[in-house]
Amino acid sequence: MSKTVELARHLETLKINNMYKNDFYWTWDKTDDEIDAVFTVADALRDLRERNKSTRVFDSGLGISIFRDNSTRTRFSFASACNLLGLEVQDLDEKTSQIAHGETVRETANMVSFMADVIGIRDDMFIGEGHKYQKTFMDAVKEGYRDGVLEQQPTLVNLQCDVDHPTQCMADMLHVIHHFGGVENLKGKKVAMTWAYSPSYGKPLSVPQGVIGLFTRFGMDVVLAHPEGYEVMPEIEEIAKRNAEATGGSYCKTNSMAEAFKDADIVYPKSWAPFAAMEERTKLYAAGDKEGIAALEKRLLAQNAEHKDWACTEEMMALTKEGKALYMHCLPADITGLSCAEGEVDNSVFDRYIIPLYKEASYKPYIIAAMIFLSQVKDPVRALMAMDEAPEQRKCF
Amino acid sequence: MSKTVELARHLETLKINNMYKNDFYWTWDKTDDEIDAVFTVADALRDLRERNKSTRVFDSGLGISIFRDNSTRTRFSFASACNLLGLEVQDLDEKTSQIAHGETVRETANMVSFMADVIGIRDDMFIGEGHKYQKTFMDAVKEGYRDGVLEQQPTLVNLQCDVDHPTQCMADMLHVIHHFGGVENLKGKKVAMTWAYSPSYGKPLSVPQGVIGLFTRFGMDVVLAHPEGYEVMPEIEEIAKRNAEATGGSYCKTNSMAEAFKDADIVYPKSWAPFAAMEERTKLYAAGDKEGIAALEKRLLAQNAEHKDWACTEEMMALTKEGKALYMHCLPADITGLSCAEGEVDNSVFDRYIIPLYKEASYKPYIIAAMIFLSQVKDPVRALMAMDEAPEQRKCF
Amino acid sequence: MSKTVELARHLETLKINNMYKNDFYWTWDKTDDEIDAVFTVADALRDLRERNKSTRVFDSGLGISIFRDNSTRTRFSFASACNLLGLEVQDLDEKTSQIAHGETVRETANMVSFMADVIGIRDDMFIGEGHKYQKTFMDAVKEGYRDGVLEQQPTLVNLQCDVDHPTQCMADMLHVIHHFGGVENLKGKKVAMTWAYSPSYGKPLSVPQGVIGLFTRFGMDVVLAHPEGYEVMPEIEEIAKRNAEATGGSYCKTNSMAEAFKDADIVYPKSWAPFAAMEERTKLYAAGDKEGIAALEKRLLAQNAEHKDWACTEEMMALTKEGKALYMHCLPADITGLSCAEGEVDNSVFDRYIIPLYKEASYKPYIIAAMIFLSQVKDPVRALMAMDEAPEQRKCF
Repeated sequence: MSKTVELARHLETLKINNMYKNDFYWTWDKTDDEIDAVFTVADALRDLRERNKSTRVFDSGLGISIFRDNSTRTRFSFASACNLLGLEVQDLDEKTSQIAHGETVRETANMVSFMADVIGIRDDMFIGEGHKYQKTFMDAVKEGYRDGVLEQQPTLVNLQCDVDHPTQCMADMLHVIHHFGGVENLKGKKVAMTWAYSPSYGKPLSVPQGVIGLFTRFGMDVVLAHPEGYEVMPEIEEIAKRNAEATGGSYCKTNSMAEAFKDADIVYPKSWAPFAAMEERTKLYAAGDKEGIAALEKRLLAQNAEHKDWACTEEMMALTKEGKALYMHCLPADITGLSCAEGEVDNSVFDRYIIPLYKEASYKPYIIAAMIFLSQVKDPVRALMAMDEAPEQRKCF
Repeated sequence: MSKTVELARHLETLKINNMYKNDFYWTWDKTDDEIDAVFTVADALRDLRERNKSTRVFDSGLGISIFRDNSTRTRFSFASACNLLGLEVQDLDEKTSQIAHGETVRETANMVSFMADVIGIRDDMFIGEGHKYQKTFMDAVKEGYRDGVLEQQPTLVNLQCDVDHPTQCMADMLHVIHHFGGVENLKGKKVAMTWAYSPSYGKPLSVPQGVIGLFTRFGMDVVLAHPEGYEVMPEIEEIAKRNAEATGGSYCKTNSMAEAFKDADIVYPKSWAPFAAMEERTKLYAAGDKEGIAALEKRLLAQNAEHKDWACTEEMMALTKEGKALYMHCLPADITGLSCAEGEVDNSVFDRYIIPLYKEASYKPYIIAAMIFLSQVKDPVRALMAMDEAPEQRKCF
Repeated sequence: MSKTVELARHLETLKINNMYKNDFYWTWDKTDDEIDAVFTVADALRDLRERNKSTRVFDSGLGISIFRDNSTRTRFSFASACNLLGLEVQDLDEKTSQIAHGETVRETANMVSFMADVIGIRDDMFIGEGHKYQKTFMDAVKEGYRDGVLEQQPTLVNLQCDVDHPTQCMADMLHVIHHFGGVENLKGKKVAMTWAYSPSYGKPLSVPQGVIGLFTRFGMDVVLAHPEGYEVMPEIEEIAKRNAEATGGSYCKTNSMAEAFKDADIVYPKSWAPFAAMEERTKLYAAGDKEGIAALEKRLLAQNAEHKDWACTEEMMALTKEGKALYMHCLPADITGLSCAEGEVDNSVFDRYIIPLYKEASYKPYIIAAMIFLSQVKDPVRALMAMDEAPEQRKCF
């Protein structure tokens, strides 16, 4: 029995009827079975590709991507996922588009979705805005489908919003699952999701929020560490607490990086902006207050600079479980002495973990493909079985 | 019998031999049968897609797009149409291209068409230039094919030139046909193609010209209304008159928006620039006369501002047939109180017609696909029949 | 027997085991059999396409392109080649990418290659840098494959580096082969690869170097001509000499354009920058020395201007064999009186050779496709035979 068949049989045991024709906004919207299904299909698609099996679901069709922020990793991951399933990517570049001043999201959404099966949106810049944009967009295409404007109802893959970064965090988690040899080995593992110093400012909160919102579902002991003033959204902390209670793990917070690293099995040190400052920034941008933005930037950089000791140094790493915690990052990292003078992580630490870091990233295309698959394929078990048996090859000769 | 088979049988009755391997510049180049064929194939392709039938004509091949002006709707429509038929879009972005100063259109045309089956060009900025560019380009690829440079002869879809906007106007017309329940119900319907105020200036004339050139072919009473000084190209008016005579409809002109709206079944209020001013602008650009251009812009904006009463208000709409004329627009519209302080249309009017407006737009990908289909498929009847019967699915699972 | 079968049988006689899973950097890395194989497969793919046979090797997969310099011809050639074989192009646009300052090439390489079968890189700007970048990139993806980050090992097509421009020069050579009716007719033909004046400066050396490195392999008499100070890389001259010795041809250098043109069968007059100046420029850029760069530019333009007599005029052409040498250029050319006041070639000469010039360019997509084919297809003979026999059509109706 191939790995894919094994995974398909596991998929059969899960309750996932709600996934078909549904969007993927946040991991905490999804049941445990649904999260499991994404990991299962991701592994199956990877197995099929390794065995040169065709995984095309679509003979034609478009995946529309909207990146309201620069992106390499996520852009190529989305393109890879679409291609894997037979969709062609069409990017909405808002710079070369004729989107009229004041044109509604509803109009744009319908105009770019004529043959779209999937929409991928990254909008992580402004607290309170990214998710709202995605929601408005998807409500519009749902209406468009209902009204007969669109022949198909596209589904969303959230490629990062102001709240969650589900494709990143699920790729991170799948990496953790494989690293520790299965989800059953995660109970009691200590995870340190910690802030780290970066010479830039204003990095999104979606990764730390996504990590505490997801990793707490696996019975792990999740610690969020950051200097005072770098709080994340309280609603997400509530979710983390509830998850931990439900799975026999724990969630706690500290203002000491060392305390978080102490005996940790996994460390995820990464810079982010203070939530309150990001709220302020959103308001300043809305008001077009350039002076206010410049002053805020200055203040934030100064505030960051007070915490240069929050770095993933060799000394910090030595505090972790046997000095060998799994170091994680969503990349690109600010590497001390390589990409900046002082940053999130020592070059020697980063360098030692390069292969695991790249593997971590390599799950993202499959996570995205699995999200698309589960929202677009009516009978995913049958589809995987058929792909496993079919003579069709990805590379034909 | 499926709708597609029915449409294919109708197609069989039409004389369309000339369409194969031919370009689509202007609707008035085409016979009534040819226009009918485009609508018929567009409807058939839409029916096939709704029924999840594969409509791939090409196993590989490129659709080259050249947008010499920003575009969203047309860009995504062209991408959708190509994808529907199995072509991959390759966009010639003149900004990142190494097109030498003084490089001839003939050279560029050959260099980007090595594997092109279809060329889509939008060049609507300068009166007297857009069509000329398309023609020069297509003559060059025809020569390239004849000389053995190219293995196939690509065909053109005019995605808007300075004279006509055939994909837009045919999508508009197909919307009208379906809205009124068939082409046979159009005789005697009154259409008001009217100018409307916009705070921007210099909008192309190709939509009003395309509309009067096409809608007059269906026995309708077409009225072109605009303030003095906003005349369109006289040649196109001549075409409109001849069409009207031939089909028992009428074509007339007025300088009163109210007169045009009076008892109209269809209203299409939309801003455009005066033809004479656009000719002047083309010359100023050619001469690189920046001061002249700025002065012209100022004059045109002032001229526009004298006609702010040319707006599709509720009062205006109340004049139409039972106050319920079909409101049309190529989008994006300048909406009073939404996208601008004073614009082409009241927000309440626009909002009431949002679903028909989006439906109108949704025909464009199918119109483009039909144009490609008819110029690339040798036996379109057989192809539609085969697609209808084939087990191939667009979404396979 | 079809032409493709004939070519496949010839391919069977060649020793090309080393091509599978190997990169294409420079023509002189490749054996004569390997070079022959590229020409053979290119011709076969062209024959198959002319006969409307499907040449898809891939059901899905990506071709990643990285253009660190503007490009039209090569960009569209790469896109065409990928499409021909079933790969979708995904372009890494370094401007809209989130490539962190100081991010390593190793990281970028892995992040964009998750589903990449082929990597095409153009990096021709800085002497000593372009090839190094390609090498570092490909070493990284090889490592990524070995470490389990990537499911497949992508192969490189060098789309131009600082040293060689193999897709251009092999397209040039295939054009020569067909022009003279076969490789067996090339012995003793005189080729003049000469510098020519251009009002721009800093053009890459990769074309003249690629030409002398490749054309000397066919028993031809290759002359490199340039004004003093425009020397190419000495290593490449060494290669040219060795090639000439091995094949019974010759390689020599002159500072007289007329001498080179005298009785030439083929002339390739084209501007390039002095190697030493390019080395200097690379250092100035590395040091961020803007004043130095401006001074160098001024000096180079002045130096160029001393050699305006190096132009492919009618008088020059009259010196060639019967006045009818085959004029070649990689395009775009600086054409006197068309694209510039004084340039590389007289308009009348260029114009007379337009069809051969376009044909020359038209081989590039097939050369690229052949390079991909030979590095990705395990049994290329069987694959060509299968494509020849298969009922699959590129255009299905």
